[in-house]
This record gives sequence, structure tokens and C-alpha cells, in this order.
Amino acid sequence: MMTRRELLASFACMALASSVVGEGQPMEQRISIVTLGVKNLAVSRRFYVDGLGWKPVYEDKEIIFFQTGGMVFALFLRDKLAEDFSGESRHVRTRPHGTRLQCSHQERSGPVDEARWGRRRNGLKSAAQATWGGYSGYFADPDGFAWEVAWNPNWRMTPDGSIHIPAPNKKSS
Amino acid sequence: MMTRRELLASFACMALASSVVGEGQPMEQRISIVTLGVKNLAVSRRFYVDGLGWKPVYEDKEIIFFQTGGMVFALFLRDKLAEDFSGESRHVRTRPHGTRLQCSHQERSGPVDEARWGRRRNGLKSAAQATWGGYSGYFADPDGFAWEVAWNPNWRMTPDGSIHIPAPNKKSS
Repeated sequence: MMTRRELLASFACMALASSVVGEGQPMEQRISIVTLGVKNLAVSRRFYVDGLGWKPVYEDKEIIFFQTGGMVFALFLRDKLAEDFSGESRHVRTRPHGTRLQCSHQERSGPVDEARWGRRRNGLKSAAQATWGGYSGYFADPDGFAWEVAWNPNWRMTPDGSIHIPAPNKKSS
Repeated sequence: MMTRRELLASFACMALASSVVGEGQPMEQRISIVTLGVKNLAVSRRFYVDGLGWKPVYEDKEIIFFQTGGMVFALFLRDKLAEDFSGESRHVRTRPHGTRLQCSHQERSGPVDEARWGRRRNGLKSAAQATWGGYSGYFADPDGFAWEVAWNPNWRMTPDGSIHIPAPNKKSS
């Protein structure tokens, strides 16, 4: 087992090689999670849960997850979302759409390979172990839209790439 | 057959009743299309197609569609996207995230029922026949994120709500 420091160091090394690697390795054509950064979670909850009738599969004080077919739709406090993808550079905070939306691509296995994604990072957070037990890194598209590349060992992925959050639903209020 | 004018008039009537109808009718828990508004389609194409290796299922000079599992990911010129969801009110243009992102929910059958969605419209376009042959209307969530409710008779929907754009791929260049 590598320590966290060793792991991060190895990511950094891989990042150095990233201008060579990556171009020829396609990313599976999937979106696993669409996350909207919202101002007030209770207000958003009323709209989506009470208004549209959607049922959360998980919720706490910062985030609400909905299972939407083979993908997940999330409402996340926008300040927390902005924190989540701020990397070494903080300039991402000034991007209005970059801090409000996240598309996430879940990998089939971990850890997330910084060599593949680092060169597209564009100031966003490099791949590293996440507090929730998996790995997460970001890249940005030419318009600054943030893509997370993540691996969550607690979520089930079917062979077709669909992801499923395990029940039960945990209510925060 | 109703004329377009009659159809619009009937939508307007339904909209008047919309403060009563709608609250108790849940919306199926699905996202059919995620559309990002992009500045330069050729630049975005290079990133997603040449860089990530994603294969378009349809593309023209304004939009590129990718089949991503049971849903669709789209890159759309941002000015065209803004036009698409501007309704009677033009104030939507000033919303930075509202004009860059669209989540679309495809209905199982048409036309789109303005009575269900009109009351949440919030300045966005009311449901009406679309130039591409189906129906499309918009509502906005509390943060101004734009949701399209649409019905496209040319796209195939499976019983689980997945949508599939028919091949072949049409290249614009």
C-alpha cells in the first residue's frame, strides 16, 4: 500500500508525462452525474421533490442525489461545489458557469489516472483521494465547463456504464 | 387538425388554468439531454471528438449530439441556445448559467402539456410546436437553470425512458 503522500507524488510524476500520454486514449462516452450548484438547498428541494415529485436517493445538508435512469442528478450547495473543484488555482471561482455546473464521469475502477486527465485540467483540481472514499479530479472544456473524473467504490456500475446509488434514502430534516 | 394559431391559443388557455393543474402530477425522474452552450463549435468538437474520442451521432453547423448511454449530450452554439429558450421575456439572456446550460426532459408522447409546465415557466418559452417537428417548452428552477420539456417524434424512447437518436451520423464538414 502506498501512503497518501506517495500516491500524490506518483500522480505528480504522471502529470509530468501527461503531455505525451492521453491523446490516444478515448474516454468512455458517458455522463454519470449532472450536478447543479444551488443557492439554497431547501428551496431547491421544494421545487424538485415537492413540486416535480422527484424522490431523492440520498440527501444531507449539502447535497441531494436523485437516481435518474442509469445516471444521477445532484443538487449541491454552490459554494461547496465551487470548493470541490477549486484546485491549485482559485481563478475558477470567477467563472460563472464553471462554478454552477459539474458533469461527472465515473471511471470503472480506481484510482483516477491523472496522466490521462491532468493535461486538460486547466487550473482545476488534480486527481486525488477524496474525503468520501474514492478518487476525484477535474478537467475543463474549452468553454470552462467543469468535468469531474471520479471513481466511487460505494456506487454500483453495471456493464453498460450505468451507475446506481445504493438505497436506503437518508433524510436530513 | 388544428392550425398553429389554434394550437397556440389552446396552449394559452391551458396556461390560464395552470395555477390549478400541475402540482399533483409528478414528472418522470429522467434527464434526456444535457446541452452545453459553447462559443465555438469547431473548438469544442476538437476537444470532445479528437481529444476525448467521443463519436457524434449527429452534427451540423449549430449543434453536435453524442449518444451517452440512455441519454444524449449536446454541444450547441451558445447564441442559438439562448435564442432557443428565450420566451416572451428577454431577461433570460442576462442569466449567465441560464444561457449556457439546458437540461431536457423528453416526454413519452406529444404535444407538451403547457398546463403542467407553464406555471413554472418563469419568463422562459411556453410550450409550442418546434421547427424540428416536435414540441418544446421551458421552465426554470429556483436558481434559473433552464429545463426543456420536449417531445421529439423522431427519437426512439425505450420503456425505461432512455432515448436514442437514430443513426446515421451526418457530417457537416
